Amino acid sequence: MSRRNVAVVGATGAVGQEFLHLFESRNFPIGSLKLLASKRSVGTKLRFRGEDVPVEEVTAEAFKGVDLAFFSAGAARSREYVPAALAEGAIVIDNSSAFRMDPNVPLVIPEVNGELITPEQKLYPVANCSAIILLMAVAPLRKLGTIERLIVSTYQSASGAGAAAMRELEAQTREVLEGKDPVPNVLPHVYAFNLFSHNTAINEHGYNEEEWKVIQECRKMLGMPDLKINVTCVRVPIPRAHSESVTVEFAGPAPSVEAVREAYRHAPGVRLVDDREGNVFPMPRDASGIEDVLVGRIRADVSNPNAICLFVSGDQLLKGAALNAVQIAERLIA
Amino acid sequence: MSRRNVAVVGATGAVGQEFLHLFESRNFPIGSLKLLASKRSVGTKLRFRGEDVPVEEVTAEAFKGVDLAFFSAGAARSREYVPAALAEGAIVIDNSSAFRMDPNVPLVIPEVNGELITPEQKLYPVANCSAIILLMAVAPLRKLGTIERLIVSTYQSASGAGAAAMRELEAQTREVLEGKDPVPNVLPHVYAFNLFSHNTAINEHGYNEEEWKVIQECRKMLGMPDLKINVTCVRVPIPRAHSESVTVEFAGPAPSVEAVREAYRHAPGVRLVDDREGNVFPMPRDASGIEDVLVGRIRADVSNPNAICLFVSGDQLLKGAALNAVQIAERLIA
Repeated sequence: MSRRNVAVVGATGAVGQEFLHLFESRNFPIGSLKLLASKRSVGTKLRFRGEDVPVEEVTAEAFKGVDLAFFSAGAARSREYVPAALAEGAIVIDNSSAFRMDPNVPLVIPEVNGELITPEQKLYPVANCSAIILLMAVAPLRKLGTIERLIVSTYQSASGAGAAAMRELEAQTREVLEGKDPVPNVLPHVYAFNLFSHNTAINEHGYNEEEWKVIQECRKMLGMPDLKINVTCVRVPIPRAHSESVTVEFAGPAPSVEAVREAYRHAPGVRLVDDREGNVFPMPRDASGIEDVLVGRIRADVSNPNAICLFVSGDQLLKGAALNAVQIAERLIA
Repeated sequence: MSRRNVAVVGATGAVGQEFLHLFESRNFPIGSLKLLASKRSVGTKLRFRGEDVPVEEVTAEAFKGVDLAFFSAGAARSREYVPAALAEGAIVIDNSSAFRMDPNVPLVIPEVNGELITPEQKLYPVANCSAIILLMAVAPLRKLGTIERLIVSTYQSASGAGAAAMRELEAQTREVLEGKDPVPNVLPHVYAFNLFSHNTAINEHGYNEEEWKVIQECRKMLGMPDLKINVTCVRVPIPRAHSESVTVEFAGPAPSVEAVREAYRHAPGVRLVDDREGNVFPMPRDASGIEDVLVGRIRADVSNPNAICLFVSGDQLLKGAALNAVQIAERLIA
């Protein structure tokens, strides 16, 4: 596998850090590595393969000679610099929402619709983290019946709002334990020992941006533009793994619990955690820092013979972001 | 209002403490107050209306002369001593699950089915906390259409597992912040910065006891034995208020968002918190320590024209337990 000249935009962020760890742990074939970020991070050095790599300012010119650019610096930054990276001939894998719903661009989870990774395609947005973790659990069920509707409530972690939100959760928690009254800064509400509806703007339908992304992006990735999705996105005081309570309604009678479990046993990237006897099911603490998405609590929906229920936990920074991006790159250069 | 001789069984527990606070704040007409608990709490004194009241051991004889006995010491204790209290002529209000599903006993939320409080009836179990908080939000919608199915995912607090679990959440959180690895004791899993499927036994349908209680008790309280209920109970690292993500499916087209809001504006015990502009919705931090249940995030279910979605937060120790019990007693003696 020939080595690539790689750039990471947003290198100092929570996802940016995970890119570096994954390049190391997966022995990603890197020729040169360019760490790019906003002006205020210039001067920072990040450790990579035993060396201190200086962070440079992201500019249109920074992508000269870059084969592969990973973006994770927000949609505005991606809109500004992804075209420049593409113009320099780089393949771009973009963790922002900027290009996800572009009809000319595929939205790929390698385990779900990896066939859309082709040599001709140069831009790969990575879907919303909640959508990815949801589909890792839902996609393996497609072979068991026609999925008609998803009903989802999320338990989302701090990391989805970035490294600053993770630090805020920790700092606020210390303050509450010291008897203080925290003042929210990164997120709009007190986060310590609290939870709240996802802090994105509410549209005319009453859904927040996060929920709307999950609906639109899941439909696109499954190739089911009319799939019915009911989703409620909630932030819980957990550092870095998202969980989701999911009901899957089929067009006909639901598959058996054992058939669902069997489907997960053969699903790449999924680990079945479904021990009724021991009361052990997916938990964000267990999902944090690992590549697999945990799926369990599989049971027939007692309110609908066509439905099953399940519970999912997945690392928001890994499969929900950086890992999915690196997996796309690995397929491309394989 | 004549004064009553009151006994509290489980006086040292989390709910027991709330009874004492509510008797004070609501000026409950108490003649004598007897605080009862297991042998190991004898010697403890609890502050009530400026005096230190000694805790006595609960025995069958302890109920002599008691007019009104509040139980909150678990189902086994209730099964053992509720008959003795009734035999002594006391009215019993029992927070345990022991008698809830007895067909000869009503299960009452005063705002929902308060008409079942009658002078003849001497035993009043208080329903499961998640069921009460759910029905505070669901019952006001009955006048807007025929409810056919509820789909619920809970975000349950530590207090539901008692004062020891609340202390464990706090102690473990300190440990994690100090870089230590907590060893769970009261609850089966690490609770700090984690969440897990409710820690009660799983039945043959794959549902845990908590979920099964919500299903059975909600049907009983609504007088709808065939109501379809899909529920997933999850513990989140929050001290004392439960939240629930709820989809309500009607037999016909769903009521408008404005009709639902209007119903809540007139529902006793409910506070509408539904500010889309400001992104302010029910949060457990706001629901903690208050008597009202918060309801909001009201929106049409984009996946089903017959359904609406909402989010609820309610204090588990107050409306979910002690307050509901005291409200029943207040109606009885009014």
